[in-house]
Parts: sequence; C-alpha cells; structure tokens
Amino acid sequence: MQKNYQKKKLGVLGGGQLGRMFIQSAINYNVDVHILDPDPNAPCRTIAQQFVQGQLLDFDDVYNFGKDCDIITIEIESVNTDALERLVAEGKEVYPQPAIIKLIQDKRTQKQFYKENQIPTSEFYLVDDIEEVKKHSDFLPAVNKLGKEGYDGRGVQIIHDIADIDKAFNKPGILEKLIDFEEEIAVIVARNKQGQLFSYPPVSCAFHPTANLVEYLFAPANISEAISERAVAIALNVIEKLDMVGLLAVEMFVTKNGEVLVNEIAPRPHNSGHHTIEANYTSQFEQHLRSVLDMPLGDTSLRMPSAMVNLLGQDGYEGEAVIEGLDEVLGMKGVYVHLYGKKNTKPFRKMGHVTILEENMEALKKKAIKIKDILKIKA
Amino acid sequence: MQKNYQKKKLGVLGGGQLGRMFIQSAINYNVDVHILDPDPNAPCRTIAQQFVQGQLLDFDDVYNFGKDCDIITIEIESVNTDALERLVAEGKEVYPQPAIIKLIQDKRTQKQFYKENQIPTSEFYLVDDIEEVKKHSDFLPAVNKLGKEGYDGRGVQIIHDIADIDKAFNKPGILEKLIDFEEEIAVIVARNKQGQLFSYPPVSCAFHPTANLVEYLFAPANISEAISERAVAIALNVIEKLDMVGLLAVEMFVTKNGEVLVNEIAPRPHNSGHHTIEANYTSQFEQHLRSVLDMPLGDTSLRMPSAMVNLLGQDGYEGEAVIEGLDEVLGMKGVYVHLYGKKNTKPFRKMGHVTILEENMEALKKKAIKIKDILKIKA
Repeated sequence: MQKNYQKKKLGVLGGGQLGRMFIQSAINYNVDVHILDPDPNAPCRTIAQQFVQGQLLDFDDVYNFGKDCDIITIEIESVNTDALERLVAEGKEVYPQPAIIKLIQDKRTQKQFYKENQIPTSEFYLVDDIEEVKKHSDFLPAVNKLGKEGYDGRGVQIIHDIADIDKAFNKPGILEKLIDFEEEIAVIVARNKQGQLFSYPPVSCAFHPTANLVEYLFAPANISEAISERAVAIALNVIEKLDMVGLLAVEMFVTKNGEVLVNEIAPRPHNSGHHTIEANYTSQFEQHLRSVLDMPLGDTSLRMPSAMVNLLGQDGYEGEAVIEGLDEVLGMKGVYVHLYGKKNTKPFRKMGHVTILEENMEALKKKAIKIKDILKIKA
Repeated sequence: MQKNYQKKKLGVLGGGQLGRMFIQSAINYNVDVHILDPDPNAPCRTIAQQFVQGQLLDFDDVYNFGKDCDIITIEIESVNTDALERLVAEGKEVYPQPAIIKLIQDKRTQKQFYKENQIPTSEFYLVDDIEEVKKHSDFLPAVNKLGKEGYDGRGVQIIHDIADIDKAFNKPGILEKLIDFEEEIAVIVARNKQGQLFSYPPVSCAFHPTANLVEYLFAPANISEAISERAVAIALNVIEKLDMVGLLAVEMFVTKNGEVLVNEIAPRPHNSGHHTIEANYTSQFEQHLRSVLDMPLGDTSLRMPSAMVNLLGQDGYEGEAVIEGLDEVLGMKGVYVHLYGKKNTKPFRKMGHVTILEENMEALKKKAIKIKDILKIKA
C-alpha cells in the first residue's frame, strides 16, 4: 500500500520557533503545513503554506482551523482541548491525543499520573492556595508550581522555608519536595500509530539561574551508562503508559544518590532537542512529523557530541532586535545559528539558538561558553 | 561594525529546487528571500517571503523584480543579464556578477575563458553549424555542444565518427575532443566580497547513461590525494580568475593518465553539492547565502562519507507524481529524502534527491544502489 503523505493537510496549533523548525523539515516531504497562531508576526508567518490568525485557547478558532485539516498537532500545550476532542469525534486525527494534552496542561493531573503509574517522581502535595502551602511547612524546602499557565520558567517558585511563604502562589498548584539533584537531564521519545518507539540519547541541561530557562545543553548527558539506560526506559514507559502518538520530551532529575525522577513532560518538540537538527541522524522536528503522519520513525543516535546555547534577549533591552557577534561565531567550525524570525526582543525572550559540534567534550564546553559570551541579542 | 543581514532584501532569479533548499537555510538567519519564477507552482512558491511570477529572460520582469531588492542572486544561469547590469549600475549588488553569468551562459565564451587563462580543459573548435563540424571530421570522436540553451543534459551530442554527423547541431556551439575519462568529478568553491575562499572536497559523479543527468554522487571522490589537491587548486583558480563572488560548481574529468580537465562550470548551487546538507559542516546552500551576503564562509569539510541519488521521474510516466517505496527507505539509518514540491512528474524530471550517510564506502555504494531500486517516482 502506497501512502502519499503529501496528500495530507497538516495543521499545527502554534506558530512559534518550534513550528518554524517543524516546517523546515516538512518541506523535504512536500507536506503542506497550516499554522494557527494569535500573533500576526509569528515566526511561522511567512513560511507556512497557510497561516491563520486565531486564539489557541478559543474553541471556535481551534475548531474552525482544524476542520480544514486532515491531521492536527501542536507546538505548545496550552490549546483548547475541547475543540480538539470535537475534531476527533468528527473523524480528524489529532496527535498528541487531546486527553493527553489536557492531562499535561495541569501539573496536578500530570503528577497524579506519575503516581498512579509508578513513574518515579519527587514527593508532592496538591495545594489550592498559600494557606495550604503553609500547612506543609514541615515539608519545606519545596517548589511551589502553578497547576496551569506555567510556561518558559513562569509559575515556579522555590520556598526554602516559612520565611519565603509569601512567594507561594495563591492558586491551585503543587508543592514538590526540592530535589538536591546531581544533574538535570532530558530524554525525547517518539511513538507512531503503529506503536513504533524510539528514544533519543539523554542530554544534560543547565538552566539559567534566574530566568529558569535552558541556557546550555550538552549531548551526550554527563551521566553513567546505567543511569542513561534507566532514564531512557522511564521515558519510553511514560509515552507507552500515556498511549500517546507523537513526540514527548521528558525532563528528569538525577539525584545525588543516583535516582532518576521525572520532573515534567512536554508532548511536542522541545528546547532540549534543538541540537538534534545537526547532531543526530534524525532531528526531533522530522521525528515529530514522522510520528504524527505515521511514517516509519528515524534513527535517533548521536552523530557527534554537541552543545546547544539559547539566544535569549539580553536583560535590559527591549525593541527591535539586533544581534551582536554573529560574524565571529560564523567563522568557527561546527557552529549552527538558528534565528527565530522575531522582530522584537525583550529580556530573556527566546530569539534563537546555536548548536555546536565538537568531538572532544572539554573543547565543546569551552566553545559553548565562548559563544554565549560573544553572541548578544540587544535592541 | 555590526552587520544586520536580516535587513537585506535578497532576491533570487529562479524558484526551483535549488531556490527551495536555499530558502530552507536562509530561514535560519531571518533573511527575507524574494523569488522570481515563470511557473506559478514553482517549488519555492509557498515558502518564499515574496513570490513574483515573471520570465527570467525578460528584461522588464528581471529589472522590476530586482529594483525592490538589495542583493540579487541566481539559482539558474539563463537569466537576462542586461537587466542585471542595469541594476548594478543603479547600485544594487548582484552576485554572481552579470558579466560572469553572461560568460558562462555561452559554452563558447566559457571555453575561450579557460584557454585564455591556462585552465586545463579538453581541446575544442568553435563551430557555427553542421558544415563546420564536418570540416573537423579528423577531430572525431568528439562532443558537439550547443553554445546556449543547453541545460540538464540537453544540447549535448556525441559524434563518434562521420556517420553520426547528422546528430550534430546546426547552430553555433563547440566541438570538444571526446575525453576517455577515468572519473568524472565536481568541486564546489565559494568566495565572498572580502575575497575569502573555500573549497568543498571533490565528489565523484556517475551520470545517467541516456538522460545525461547526475544519477549517483559519492563523497569523497574516488581519486588519489594528489589528484584531489590538483582539482581543488584548479577550481579555486577558476573562481579567482573570474573574480567572482558567490558559489561556483566546477565539473571536471580525470583522464586515464591522471590529467584533470575542466568540463563545465555553474555559478550557483549545484546538483553535485546536494549531499552537503547532511554530509558536510556547511551546506552549499548556506555557503551560497554566506557568500552573497558577505558573511564569513563556513567550514566545508566532510563530516561523513555520503552518496546522493537523484529521484528522476520514471520513464514512461507523466502526470501527478506518486512516490513508491518511501516507507522502506525511511526505515534505513542515515537516509535523507528531499522532495522538491513538484506536483507533476515526467520522464527524467528532477523530482527530488536522497542523501545517504555511511562510514564504510562499500556499504555506502550498496545502499545507494538499493535505494535507487526501491524509490520510484511514477504517476
């Protein structure tokens, strides 16, 4: 039987950088990508086959957009899942499945899912407001996370002791035991309709101290073979327990005593997989495309050690973006700059990323730090 | 000094597969690409920031298109160079320079250029018609090439002996000594405004017996280190003698006695460089972008041995294209399918290509041949 992927009309909810890199790989398969995004100047604006302006959380906007597509997927999880469920009921294919997006949208149900499925994760309590956080003062130090609306580092607050209590959110969320971790890692897995499963090798993530965004990423991860295998097994278990079709990023903590705990998951291409474009045999964006179109999945192994540096808007600058130091980094071997087509910068806005390839891990780290020092997004 | 490449409006004459892959890499730099092409369904149609329909050989179409751009480049050499010269006179940047495009458009002036600059090439005569070909019967076997309008294998005729004389063109062209070559190779070189020079490693090309199109390509080329160095030196010499800014593909013959002779040149990304997208540190498309925008050029070394197979429309099929065997090849490691977004196929039409990566050259050859057998473009 001959599948003709090009005949499928593929809709993506969200037209940011993830959608943009997704389109770059979809071009190779003549797949028509339709984008829904509220921002008329979204990064996908000029390269999408069709760009529809609309609200991702609005039922009608999502439903009307999806009606014209054969398959619908996402690049961000805060979307209207009721509209997606309606589309499924009407025979559209939606991956990841709406129920899974819904479950992941709320960190509370996400945590409960781990618990019910014996997926290792940090201890936690569900809390509805500051009062409930106070009740658990003996549980501190802990991390208070909003159930919903947390994104790109927002909605997360560390409560070291009762003195920090006013930092807590007065909204439904979770209170997680603060993990004294050795390493923060991420594993991206993919699954297609036929149930074919693939995992990328784990990567180490270094977060920005204040912005709580991935600042550096290193592949392979700085962990033992045994821990790497456990992390991959856990990530594969999560996507199978979810019975999900698509791409899933699993962020994990490796504790000082070698435990591997799931922190959060994202059912889409993820910042921790940007290096796969140049460093792995198959990029996470192509893998996402393959999984939702039910193509055979691609080999995920690493071609070469690599690092990824996010290009965040420099603190203190707002307005039309200007990039500094580009020529200097372009002169270096194995350096790949990806700009996201965002006209305006603001502090810590994700404006692009750089992937670096190097055989030697030490040289790789030095190069990543050097590039971070040279490249600046200002206004 | 901070250059802001994103501020440049870049126009490309031609919106075929070369323009399409060029846009895929320009996206990483937020460079606005404007395309001029006569075909309303050209491969660049949906991904260009602006798509203008017009004739590439029409003065007004080219001039009016170029007026709105800052920098103009090409993806095909049969364009109106008078319009480009006017644009240069009016302060636009055009790379490759119009005079060079003009010189290359005619195989007669191209050959004379090699002769005048002591660039090794096969012996030849300029011929105006069949009568003149006849006069050189003692020069046979030879290849009769049209001066102009030869493209993708058209306009080339082998004249083994006087009996073949009726195959000769009755138009101005050249009669080249038929070279009994050992290997057909290609070297792509790039040069930016600052004069920075880079060469890609030579590749071996295997041409389709009848269609006279590249059928397979292997990198590195199947030649000695000494011949490889000579080929690179010749290609660099050609671009410097031309004083050209941009990307230049130099096709060469390696004769049985180890001579390296320039066959033809193309001042743009070339079929013999498609593998560089996955196999080299910098792809030929990004290098083209860097050269015309006067960015620092990228490292050209090979990351891994690779092969490229053109996906030509199957002989005997015409109409809406259907691809056979895609799933089977997608399951293989290190296989990259690039489809060009052409709705309709016809015999030998370039519909896409596949790049294959393999550490071992023997395994690489086997895989390339296997993929050629599996993947078919029919209607």
